[in-house]
Amino acid sequence: MKKYINGEYFPGIQTIKYEGPDSDSPFAYRYYEADKVVGGKTMREHLRFAVAYWHSFCGTGADPFGPGTITHPWDAPADPIDAAKAKADAAFEFITKMGLDYFCFHDFDLVREADTLAGSEKLLQQVTEYIQQKQKDTGIKVLWGTANLFSHPRYMNGAATNPDFRIVARAGAQVKLALDTTMALGGENYVFWGGREGYMSLLNTDMKRELDHLGRFLGMARNYARGQGFKGNFFIEPKPMEPMKHQYDFDAATVVGFLEHYDLLDDFKLNLEVNHATLANHSMQHEMEVAAMHGLLGSIDANRGDYQNGWDTDQFPNNIYELTQLMLVFLQAGGLKGGGINFDAKLRRNSTDPEDLFHAHIGGVDIFARALITAARILESSEYISLRQERYRSFDSGDGKHFETGKLNLGSLYEIAAGNGEIPMTSGRQELFENLINRYI
Amino acid sequence: MKKYINGEYFPGIQTIKYEGPDSDSPFAYRYYEADKVVGGKTMREHLRFAVAYWHSFCGTGADPFGPGTITHPWDAPADPIDAAKAKADAAFEFITKMGLDYFCFHDFDLVREADTLAGSEKLLQQVTEYIQQKQKDTGIKVLWGTANLFSHPRYMNGAATNPDFRIVARAGAQVKLALDTTMALGGENYVFWGGREGYMSLLNTDMKRELDHLGRFLGMARNYARGQGFKGNFFIEPKPMEPMKHQYDFDAATVVGFLEHYDLLDDFKLNLEVNHATLANHSMQHEMEVAAMHGLLGSIDANRGDYQNGWDTDQFPNNIYELTQLMLVFLQAGGLKGGGINFDAKLRRNSTDPEDLFHAHIGGVDIFARALITAARILESSEYISLRQERYRSFDSGDGKHFETGKLNLGSLYEIAAGNGEIPMTSGRQELFENLINRYI
Amino acid sequence: MKKYINGEYFPGIQTIKYEGPDSDSPFAYRYYEADKVVGGKTMREHLRFAVAYWHSFCGTGADPFGPGTITHPWDAPADPIDAAKAKADAAFEFITKMGLDYFCFHDFDLVREADTLAGSEKLLQQVTEYIQQKQKDTGIKVLWGTANLFSHPRYMNGAATNPDFRIVARAGAQVKLALDTTMALGGENYVFWGGREGYMSLLNTDMKRELDHLGRFLGMARNYARGQGFKGNFFIEPKPMEPMKHQYDFDAATVVGFLEHYDLLDDFKLNLEVNHATLANHSMQHEMEVAAMHGLLGSIDANRGDYQNGWDTDQFPNNIYELTQLMLVFLQAGGLKGGGINFDAKLRRNSTDPEDLFHAHIGGVDIFARALITAARILESSEYISLRQERYRSFDSGDGKHFETGKLNLGSLYEIAAGNGEIPMTSGRQELFENLINRYI
Amino acid sequence: MKKYINGEYFPGIQTIKYEGPDSDSPFAYRYYEADKVVGGKTMREHLRFAVAYWHSFCGTGADPFGPGTITHPWDAPADPIDAAKAKADAAFEFITKMGLDYFCFHDFDLVREADTLAGSEKLLQQVTEYIQQKQKDTGIKVLWGTANLFSHPRYMNGAATNPDFRIVARAGAQVKLALDTTMALGGENYVFWGGREGYMSLLNTDMKRELDHLGRFLGMARNYARGQGFKGNFFIEPKPMEPMKHQYDFDAATVVGFLEHYDLLDDFKLNLEVNHATLANHSMQHEMEVAAMHGLLGSIDANRGDYQNGWDTDQFPNNIYELTQLMLVFLQAGGLKGGGINFDAKLRRNSTDPEDLFHAHIGGVDIFARALITAARILESSEYISLRQERYRSFDSGDGKHFETGKLNLGSLYEIAAGNGEIPMTSGRQELFENLINRYI
Ligand SMILES: [Co+2]
Ligand SMILES: [Co+2]
Ligand SMILES: [Co+2]
Ligand SMILES: [Co+2]
Ligand SMILES: [Co+2]
Ligand SMILES: [Co+2]
Ligand SMILES: [Co+2]
Ligand SMILES: [Co+2]
Repeated sequence: MKKYINGEYFPGIQTIKYEGPDSDSPFAYRYYEADKVVGGKTMREHLRFAVAYWHSFCGTGADPFGPGTITHPWDAPADPIDAAKAKADAAFEFITKMGLDYFCFHDFDLVREADTLAGSEKLLQQVTEYIQQKQKDTGIKVLWGTANLFSHPRYMNGAATNPDFRIVARAGAQVKLALDTTMALGGENYVFWGGREGYMSLLNTDMKRELDHLGRFLGMARNYARGQGFKGNFFIEPKPMEPMKHQYDFDAATVVGFLEHYDLLDDFKLNLEVNHATLANHSMQHEMEVAAMHGLLGSIDANRGDYQNGWDTDQFPNNIYELTQLMLVFLQAGGLKGGGINFDAKLRRNSTDPEDLFHAHIGGVDIFARALITAARILESSEYISLRQERYRSFDSGDGKHFETGKLNLGSLYEIAAGNGEIPMTSGRQELFENLINRYI
Repeated sequence: MKKYINGEYFPGIQTIKYEGPDSDSPFAYRYYEADKVVGGKTMREHLRFAVAYWHSFCGTGADPFGPGTITHPWDAPADPIDAAKAKADAAFEFITKMGLDYFCFHDFDLVREADTLAGSEKLLQQVTEYIQQKQKDTGIKVLWGTANLFSHPRYMNGAATNPDFRIVARAGAQVKLALDTTMALGGENYVFWGGREGYMSLLNTDMKRELDHLGRFLGMARNYARGQGFKGNFFIEPKPMEPMKHQYDFDAATVVGFLEHYDLLDDFKLNLEVNHATLANHSMQHEMEVAAMHGLLGSIDANRGDYQNGWDTDQFPNNIYELTQLMLVFLQAGGLKGGGINFDAKLRRNSTDPEDLFHAHIGGVDIFARALITAARILESSEYISLRQERYRSFDSGDGKHFETGKLNLGSLYEIAAGNGEIPMTSGRQELFENLINRYI
Repeated sequence: MKKYINGEYFPGIQTIKYEGPDSDSPFAYRYYEADKVVGGKTMREHLRFAVAYWHSFCGTGADPFGPGTITHPWDAPADPIDAAKAKADAAFEFITKMGLDYFCFHDFDLVREADTLAGSEKLLQQVTEYIQQKQKDTGIKVLWGTANLFSHPRYMNGAATNPDFRIVARAGAQVKLALDTTMALGGENYVFWGGREGYMSLLNTDMKRELDHLGRFLGMARNYARGQGFKGNFFIEPKPMEPMKHQYDFDAATVVGFLEHYDLLDDFKLNLEVNHATLANHSMQHEMEVAAMHGLLGSIDANRGDYQNGWDTDQFPNNIYELTQLMLVFLQAGGLKGGGINFDAKLRRNSTDPEDLFHAHIGGVDIFARALITAARILESSEYISLRQERYRSFDSGDGKHFETGKLNLGSLYEIAAGNGEIPMTSGRQELFENLINRYI
Repeated sequence: MKKYINGEYFPGIQTIKYEGPDSDSPFAYRYYEADKVVGGKTMREHLRFAVAYWHSFCGTGADPFGPGTITHPWDAPADPIDAAKAKADAAFEFITKMGLDYFCFHDFDLVREADTLAGSEKLLQQVTEYIQQKQKDTGIKVLWGTANLFSHPRYMNGAATNPDFRIVARAGAQVKLALDTTMALGGENYVFWGGREGYMSLLNTDMKRELDHLGRFLGMARNYARGQGFKGNFFIEPKPMEPMKHQYDFDAATVVGFLEHYDLLDDFKLNLEVNHATLANHSMQHEMEVAAMHGLLGSIDANRGDYQNGWDTDQFPNNIYELTQLMLVFLQAGGLKGGGINFDAKLRRNSTDPEDLFHAHIGGVDIFARALITAARILESSEYISLRQERYRSFDSGDGKHFETGKLNLGSLYEIAAGNGEIPMTSGRQELFENLINRYI
């Protein structure tokens, strides 16, 4: 099988293999064994890692204070299709060498946007054919697709929530094409991240009207895709702010309420990003619990923020103590509803060597694998579950159970309380729980 | 009328009167004329100011690093009823001298909690009778009552969300008494602030079970009060954190979603606090808009946080630019649904003179009055409303209107977009909107 | 006098004039009367407003999630000098129409950087000549110049603190040219903002070595300019983070300590930016006090951040309550040491009309003017100063004075304390002070 | 040896012993072997763990929203000396059972403050004698002592920085007694934490005068102790805010600048607390590097904050990834200058069992031990040091070295740059560095 149509983009780097915890090689997995069974499934089945096309193959290191630091060879061709093919070659080479199964993309990650809608549609169709072939050759799949409704200047006042209906229509057209592309590539899910769906200032904004438009728009997209036979999930990816002052999909609880209010719960779930969670002043575990509690834990954008920086740094994950707690929620929720672990993470602007992309992803894959193994052992071998259940035992029978099942009223509570003497204090034992995590790392 | 049963607590301070903007007196209103009509109602009717019993008559200046700095003379009596009466005397003297109409209270603000439920019930009944008489004498009313379900050690793991059912029952009993007290005092509303309803650590917490308990509990309280003939509103007061690591009533959107999920929307609305909004990483205007959009803008806890301090500083409001924006939302929402402006604000620990309580409240009342006047002028005299409406004009007719009424689908949007040429950029004109506010201050 | 060599860039907008507080025109000053005397000096002399070349004439609205939304006509020419002249024409037209006296610039704001150092030097010299002529024509002056040592990819690991000496040398060469340009344009001051002088990760950083390099580098720049006869001030502009995870010039206190440690206090002062202050978890007043206390309050970058957004939003100032407090510090410090009020502020990405640039600057100028007037009245007419001095009276004589002059030791304090009985509590009266500000707005 | 004069306070808990990583016991060390040599010293010598008297034996769980949840048996006696002895018994029992060597204290942790200075002095002397005897019996030492200058209402406006000289004198007297006590107990160091040394509002504050007072005060304390023969270190513990809006000892850089400005560098070093670092928007590693760079890394208050909570939560440390990075700085700095690792950490308010105090400290000790072992292995076995040094190689010779030694000027840099062609980009390899940490955990 000839993979490198336009040559090899990451020469000198072999497929990354599992070598075990004692390996000294920076180009090996120490924990990730794709086919090893942990907690009843293989790691591959649990984690379903995806590489993000945008950060890994489109990102150049630009930030608000300077342009990109990396020039990708695959961006060189002037012809958009030539460049798109070269980029796809590089992407498939990388994902193959990493031994991963999925990628995620925005429409215009795949190919440069044209000047007209019709032009863009044609380019998307051409690159789709090329990528379909590469998928056949490699077995690499699409975890999810999405439309970039935030970069183009036309969306500066929002896409689905733009005050100008013509922009809303334009956004709708783009979503149609992105859905077509995702379906053509066998995408398992489709994501909405509303980067400009929000406001810069409440002074000039009719928030209710904009939210009504958003609810309407999402329903239309759902209807279209279902009409085309799409069986996958729709995900909303919450983020509280940036680029806008405030974004409507602020956090998991806000999005759950929105989906319920606009009657979208049957088709939509959540794609949670770690850095978005912390920007919203939540832990990622919290966001995952909120989603899981409603059966909406769809997918994860894996990265980390910097706790001292108030913007979306999208760094690769590396903290085993934090990730183990996250995987505890993951496993107890029964895993993800249709999604996977997508590395929505980017190299630092000064990480300019091709090897850096491997270091970053190897670190990310491995720390998730280690966290999965650790969390599974905690759940299987330790008193963790029983310690927590014991705290709620009083609701498992008697008046407590009657309370849960709605058989009591406030008067009953008053009578019960009047009949009880002083109630003993029960320690929450938080420090014991915390030590227990470390016992298994 | 003899107001000072146990003597005067704020001697030397006369009733605060309106003297106009040029007054040099620190003991006068410069903007608040209670009976002046602004935007169709008197200021008194719009604002319905309330004094918070807890901060103003119970607070002593204690903080995590030291005990109180103020000794209130009314706390001196050893007998709880004697002390409660003295405190009520001081409170009614203060509110009368301020020329305000309302107060708000927690159950055990009124009188010290006894060792037993029955003992507390008896004390509450006794102090209720005394306060009823004072209300008759002065015309001062109760904006809302509530139960303190967070201070007593028994609630350290939560009240309605406590893992121990006995504590839940005890909380229910306390809420029953607090509802009884509120109704007996003619309270217009009843508030829930879930200070310990949340978690210190997700590791030892079953969040879904706790939330189900909370939903159940609130329904029981509602049923009880409605059964007793209570016609007022129930309010939930969101706060994201503190004292807990995370509190379930995180922000307005979270609470709206919760109320919808647990089918409580018919009876419950929101009591929004400025400092809680900013701790949740929102502006107060945002929180008010979210509530108003759902018809749930019930009441306001007026204060401010410190933008450099990450805890609830509960300072008195003083920023005219911010408050004017807040009153723009207030007026456009048609005011509050049943509530008022409650000064949930406290003196700094080193503001230890009796006069300081007057300075603080005078400043707070006056800045709200000025903001109300300013906002009313902006709405009445300026192009503010039309500038904003103009932005959304494309949805008032044609395809835009069809979009809003659900007559289009994604295919229609695609067709419309394909038919449009390049869409011109429309400035959001944020800086113009901002200047317009300053033109009227 | 023919100002618009290449045509008028802001047609239809006349010179902005003072029309007084009751003006309804959005294109008028309501408070800024340049030649009106306030507190002993004209407003012009106090405030020395400057327009920032980068935001106003180079910025296009790009952000991390999308490219620019504005295309400046002056950027059209392919020839760098043609484009630079057009930009200068637009800038001088704007500053003239605004009735302001100064601008600030980075080297490559003036003209596009060339591929080589020699090429850039030549371009800078050519554009300098052109601008010199425009300065003669209009009387517009340079408040300060600086070098952009953060945008070019070569500086991704720092400029003066780069681990690679060749980059340090390159930065030195660029600073030499920027100093030459600033001097040629009669720049009154020179600024260093160390946007990439810091670290992305401590793991790969030798912080001490980098700081030693920075100290050395600044001394070299100072020596060069002094050798060329430059009499102006050198300013350091603190910013805690962004683009780097941590920047060495974190805040005023850090920079003061740095200047003292590296013996640079004789020549360097501070240029403080409001949004940088708040990113560092300080109020701007605090930063100004720290600088003023050491005689280092050099200049101000006027803008504001968003209290809910953790990055540098660089919005135009608009909050009169905050600005009045800032001008209280300003006036009590005797104004700025050589600098002025530079609008380091940018239009929102969706403010795309040419008029928006006027609205933004008019709002900024006017709110500073109003704050200056208000603060001057507080200092002249109110008890503000005496209220504060009174708090420290005990140090003006007796043992308190002996303490200040070093005539006591710990044993003396023990003896004095042993001789004192209980010391009465003294209220800090914060709420009274806060009300006093509002009395004068 | 009879240790439990008043009975055993932690019955049923034996001395905590090292049992190795595979131990299932929650009452064992899995990493801390006091006498095992790591990186050239025993763990005991490296870490010098101390228990904080205040949190562990005085704290009751009170927070701003409720009183304490724990009643300590040793607080029962009405007589202050009886209670102080009982508390000392409990403290020495706990420290002995933990197998640790040190404790830290505030003056009135040891015994309740009396109504008069003379009364307090007498109580301190009595309890000192009792503790001296316990030290002889157990070998437990004092890492540092300090004075509580923030809890008593008299200090509400500050202690050394109080506007009232009488309070400053009173603070001086208290510091004298605290120094006497510390010296009598063989304290190895003395700490200043200026909890109320700062401001609530700049409006009523003369910051420069207050800082001058603080500098003067610290010098007096130093002179007194040195005159009494004290050879230990004086430490300042930075904290940015809380309880005050702003505290003068904001962070390490601010304190270093302060010490340099007031000429206190010969005697003072820093005591850094993790949660204070993060409240100041720094990582703890950063604070340690700043201190170490100036030779001022004196001691550590070990705890952690909650990244979603903006106040000082003082939780026990538990994050191995973060602590390993911290111990990398620790080891490279050659350890602490005279101090140790003091657990300035408290149980959660709902951790009310006596065992919880053990769980918390065992977790803290063990995670530091594991981090020390891991960091030592990284430094000894990996390429970490050389990877970092390599980045700065260009300064080790040639022009780079001339730059460092001051032999170049700006003109030289210009010449060097002009002579260089395009400089290649060098990756910072941050992700590789991060992976390297995880390889050794
Ligand atoms: Co994402
Ligand atoms: Co992100
Ligand atoms: Co409140
Ligand atoms: Co509050
Ligand atoms: Co600036
Ligand atoms: Co800025
Ligand atoms: Co500490
Ligand atoms: Co602390």
